[in-house]
Order: sequence, then structure tokens, then C-alpha cells
Amino acid sequence: MTSPFARAELERRCERARALMHQHALDAMLLTSERNVEYFSGFASDLWASPTRPFYLVIPREGEPSAILPQGAESQWRRTAWVEQIESWPAPRPQDEGVTTVAAVLRRSGRRFGCVGLEMGPESRIGITLADALKLIDTLRPLAVGDCSELCRELRMIKSAAEIARLRAVGRIASASFARLPGMVTPASTESDVARRFVADLCAGGADKVPFLAFASGPGGYDNILSRPTERALARGDVLAIDTGATVGGYFCDFDRNLSVGPAPAPAAQAYVVLHRATAAGIEAARPGATAADVFHAQAKVIDAMGARRATMGRFGHGLGMSLTEWPSNKPDDLTPLRPGIVLTIEPGVDFGDGKVMVHEENVVITEDGCELLSVRAAPELPEVPW
Amino acid sequence: MTSPFARAELERRCERARALMHQHALDAMLLTSERNVEYFSGFASDLWASPTRPFYLVIPREGEPSAILPQGAESQWRRTAWVEQIESWPAPRPQDEGVTTVAAVLRRSGRRFGCVGLEMGPESRIGITLADALKLIDTLRPLAVGDCSELCRELRMIKSAAEIARLRAVGRIASASFARLPGMVTPASTESDVARRFVADLCAGGADKVPFLAFASGPGGYDNILSRPTERALARGDVLAIDTGATVGGYFCDFDRNLSVGPAPAPAAQAYVVLHRATAAGIEAARPGATAADVFHAQAKVIDAMGARRATMGRFGHGLGMSLTEWPSNKPDDLTPLRPGIVLTIEPGVDFGDGKVMVHEENVVITEDGCELLSVRAAPELPEVPW
Repeated sequence: MTSPFARAELERRCERARALMHQHALDAMLLTSERNVEYFSGFASDLWASPTRPFYLVIPREGEPSAILPQGAESQWRRTAWVEQIESWPAPRPQDEGVTTVAAVLRRSGRRFGCVGLEMGPESRIGITLADALKLIDTLRPLAVGDCSELCRELRMIKSAAEIARLRAVGRIASASFARLPGMVTPASTESDVARRFVADLCAGGADKVPFLAFASGPGGYDNILSRPTERALARGDVLAIDTGATVGGYFCDFDRNLSVGPAPAPAAQAYVVLHRATAAGIEAARPGATAADVFHAQAKVIDAMGARRATMGRFGHGLGMSLTEWPSNKPDDLTPLRPGIVLTIEPGVDFGDGKVMVHEENVVITEDGCELLSVRAAPELPEVPW
Repeated sequence: MTSPFARAELERRCERARALMHQHALDAMLLTSERNVEYFSGFASDLWASPTRPFYLVIPREGEPSAILPQGAESQWRRTAWVEQIESWPAPRPQDEGVTTVAAVLRRSGRRFGCVGLEMGPESRIGITLADALKLIDTLRPLAVGDCSELCRELRMIKSAAEIARLRAVGRIASASFARLPGMVTPASTESDVARRFVADLCAGGADKVPFLAFASGPGGYDNILSRPTERALARGDVLAIDTGATVGGYFCDFDRNLSVGPAPAPAAQAYVVLHRATAAGIEAARPGATAADVFHAQAKVIDAMGARRATMGRFGHGLGMSLTEWPSNKPDDLTPLRPGIVLTIEPGVDFGDGKVMVHEENVVITEDGCELLSVRAAPELPEVPW
């Protein structure tokens, strides 16, 4: 376990949110998603795995934040969150799962703008039912409802030193497990055998959870890197990749590693070298003043120059933090300027051979004068498991 | 990895949904949550960990289902899902993340009722942004939008033999890890040390993921069972509990085990015996013809008769399946009749001493003439780790 965020840091996040709420013309924001409630309050709980009882955090532009909690969760709230104003309802109570109480709290917020923010925009999710969201929008009239997810993005995109420490920790843990991966690929293993050893190793090594694990393998290469591990038996001549999103203290790593089972087949070995160089170019381009689009183009340029075919994944990397994928997107139309504290995956992919694809991925945080690797850089040539 | 559900079973689920859609006066339903999309299509993916790209499944009352997928996910869809009609859009594309395509597919559905179902009701979640849900509701006019989550509940509540096999598997794996737990509680360990060993053991033993893990400990007992493991050092005289929700093939177990570090303190040992008997009564009551309320009352009666104080958790157990908590709730006002295939947690709790609580939990599936335990029954007396 990582030590909790300092109360001062959590309060500062709320302060910044308030300043932005003024700019966004919101009198208050209502947060119901795990990530945003945790980001602003510090509330850390596995209870989000259950959809029965929602948790609400109201941050008004003026005045103190309030938590609206299912009865019984108060002590766990107090243990991890700094927000002291708590109201509760006897849950589960499907006919009114806290909505009436939340509406009353929101109505007590100032009325300067006559508008309350809900999490609505791209890549956001609500942690309540759609029926409750509609009921709330209706109940709040004449108060209008706007979006506060853009504001949350803006804040969460720039990571603090304490957040970067968690990202560094999970990157180190996953790198250590990947370094041990060749020893887990033993004769007669299936994808799922290897995945199971790898996940147990991540957990023993210090990861809290492994919400994301994709496994790909095939003779000479694989054709996608989105699949869960299967019962496919690994064989000499296979190329495999594991892509993992493990967490420490609620923060994700997201990177993959490729391996050849036995001597590396030439086309895969060549694709690997292209990707290693494209990744290097992406890392080089990831610096303050550049844009997410620049990081895309730097990678694409290497792939093109080496005569390889770009994979069609829509982007070559993305933001990373409390979610496996965040903003920005490393793609031609994302002109987000990179600033210190932005965390990115550098993730080029190439198509090769007959329907094969290969993907590389590293994680970096933008610093004052470039970027710092959060993952231990992959080997420059396709590693081989002796078989 | 468990073997995938047979195509015939997945198709049968859709067929049943269609019959219920007729009753619920829906022309089609649009599913966007991981659980419901997986339940009807078979699509199994860790990509849901990323909120960037949604996945949509449309099941019309008449005609074939359609998947609307982000470009690049088609091959992974075909690998796991049986639904063959696929449309896609170039994702990520925040300005239209598939909504226009989905609306067009929904408009092609029959118009008998003029109403399309979205996941709206109690304990449901949408897998798209609130802005996209509102846009969709607006775009679909004059088609009305209703709730299809109740229909999904009805179907998912009765588990098939293949689903029960997965629940049995995860119950067995967690039971085996719990049996090894005393050996993981070593001197100088913290809660989080023990939790880490336990999670690694679950994964090595065959669990796919461990989305839920609550750890409680304290001298003579604990005061809540909602907390994540902390850096608290365990000591002789502590009573600890781990409650875990691990998964196999997307299906959860949800039960806990209590342990005394050194000789069991008398009040905790007494509370344990009360709970063990209350659990036995709950298991006895869990049979076809009884209601969820009956299962609550059977447990409450034992606690009352033994002069103990009922804990205020709102219910003494709940449904279990693809979510950690499902319907029904074992509470006085839930009159859901139990039928074969319903899976329940039996979960009594008592308050004791000065602010302490203890909770027991077992998992059962209702059979033709009673119920079958999915967890290996806890010991009748509070187990002690020699320290």
C-alpha cells in the first residue's frame, strides 16, 4: 500500500476545481464516478465493484464539499477522505438511492450561474443509474445541468509529485515482472498458464490490482493485442506479447513486452526493431512545448522512413493515470500542448507479414526539459526464450 | 481460463430477451454495460477498463442483433462473440463516439411499440457518457426510450448450468486460498503484506481477477469490513477478516473468513458462533418457494434468539453473479421468490463489544430441493493462527 495523499493536496485539488468552476460558469459539481470522487476526496474503496450503493460528492463553488453516502459507509469514508460534511440514506433503497438528498444539497449551493455540473463529456462515466441521472436533471429544474468532466480532465491531466510517485511505483513493479517473464514461459504452457504466473508475480511484487491484461501469441507473430489469455498452447516459433494495466494506489501502468519463443523469426525481429526506434523517437518528442500530435508524428515518421506499415489503431499512445486510458491522444488532430506532469504512453504499432501486427509501449511523464521513463525500456532486439 | 459459453446458450439468452421485450413493450434494447453486453453476446474483453471507446449491442425484438464497435475491435469481437452483424466507427472520435451509427441501427428496428430500452433501472450502469445517452435519447425521437435493465435482471438472476460451473470454480479457488490463509499470517506482517500473499495465491490458484478485497483487523475484533488493507501491523490478540470478490470467467465469488491471531478473545469467539449458526439457518432457509426476505428472517431470528445484536448493514446477503452484488436483497421488504439457479450470499452480521462488528458470508445456489454451497463452509469455531 502507498501512503495516502496529504490532506493539503486533496484540498488543493478542490480549490483548483473551484477556480475552474468559476470559468466554466458552474455553481457546483456533482461527482459520482470512482475516479473523480477519489481524486477530490481521497475516498479509496473496493465498494465501487458493487453497483448497488452509489457514492456522491458535491463540490460547490463556494462553501464546503459534501459527501452523500449509503448508511454504513461513513466510517470507511472518514478513514480515507478529508471531506467532513456527510449526509446518508438507508441503502439499499432502490426507489430513492440518495437522489432526493443529493438534489437538496445541490439546491443549497450558490445560484450565481444557475448551473450545476455533472460528469457528461468524452471518456467520462457516471456512477449512478441513467434513471437516477434523468430524475436528478428533472428534479433540479430550474437549475440547469452542464458538464464538469472537462474541468476534471484539465486538473487530472497534470499529475502531482505524489501521483507521479505512484505511477513510478507501478511502472517499476510491472517492469520487474516483465523481466521475470521469460522464466514463466515454460514448455507445454498455455497463454493462460503464463498469464496466471505473471499476474501472481505482479501481485506478489506489489501491484494492488491487475484490471487489464491482454495476451497475444501466434507462429511468427500475433494478429491483435486485445484478447484475454486463451488455452492456446505456446510453441517454438511463436511470438507473444503481454500488455498489462496494473495499479498501485489507484494509478495504472499500461505497457507491453514482446518475446520470441525460441529463435526470433526474421519478420517479427525486423518489426521489433522498427518499433523500438519509433518508440525512441516518441520518447524524444515527448517534451514541454510539443503537442500530443507531435509525439504521434515522431513515431509515424520512423515507421514510414523504415518502410514499415503503420498499424491502424487510431493513435500511437494516450494519457495515463487513474484510468488505463486518459487524455490526450497521440494522434494527428490532438493539439494538446505537453506540460510537466502529463503522463503518456508511447505506443507505436506496425502491421507486417500476412495480417500480423506488433505493438510496443512505454510510459513516460513529461518533465521540465523532456520526459522521464516510468517503465524500464524494452530491450533493443526481440528477446528470445530458449526453447 | 474457463471454456466459452456454447453459442446455443448465448442465442437462447437473446431469444428469452426477445420474449420479455414483447412483454415490456420494447422494440429493441441497446446495451452498453460490460456485464450485459457480455451476457448476451459472449464478448469477453479487458478493454472495458478503458473508458475511451464504448461498445454497443443492439438486440431488436425481431431480426438479428448488431454490434457497433470501435474500429480495431472487430477481430476480438469475432473471437469471443456470436453476433455477426457488426458496424464500426473510427475511434477515438470524441465528437461522435458511435452514437450516430447506433441511432441508425435502432431506427431500423421494428416500430410496433415505438419504444427502445436502455439500461436505466436499479443497480444498472451505462457504458457510455451521460452526454451521449442524452444525445441518443434526443436523436431517437419520436421513438420513446424505456428501461431494459429490469428485463436483463430477470434473465441474469436465474443462472444456467454453465454459469453455475464458473461460480462453483471461483468458490472452490477462493475456499482453497482461504484454507491457506493462516499460513500467510506471519509475525511482523501488516494487513497489506497478508493481502498481497492472499491475492497472489488466488491468482496462482486460478482466479482471473480480484476486483474486491476488504481487510479488517483490530485487537479483539474489527469495526468495519469495508476497508482496503492498510499498513497496520498485525499483533497477537487481533481478530481479522478478509472479504473477497474474485472472478473466474467473469463470475464472482463473494465471501469472507475470520481468523484470530493467537488464542481467540471470548467476545469475538462468541460472536463467531452466533454468526455460524445464523449462517446455517440462512442456508437452510434458502430453498425454492421461500423468499429473499425469509432468508433474512431466518438469520435474524438466530441472532435475536442468542441474545446478540444484529449489525446494521441493510441486508443479510444478496444475489451474486457477473457482478459482486446482484438482486435480490436478503431484507424484510424483498419478496423475490427463490427459484433454482438463483445464487445468493448468506451474510449475517452482529455488533458486539464496544463498536465492534463481525460478518460471516457463504455463497449458495438454489437447487430443486434446497441449495448447494459454492464456498467451502467456514469452521464452526473462530480459527486461531498459532502466534
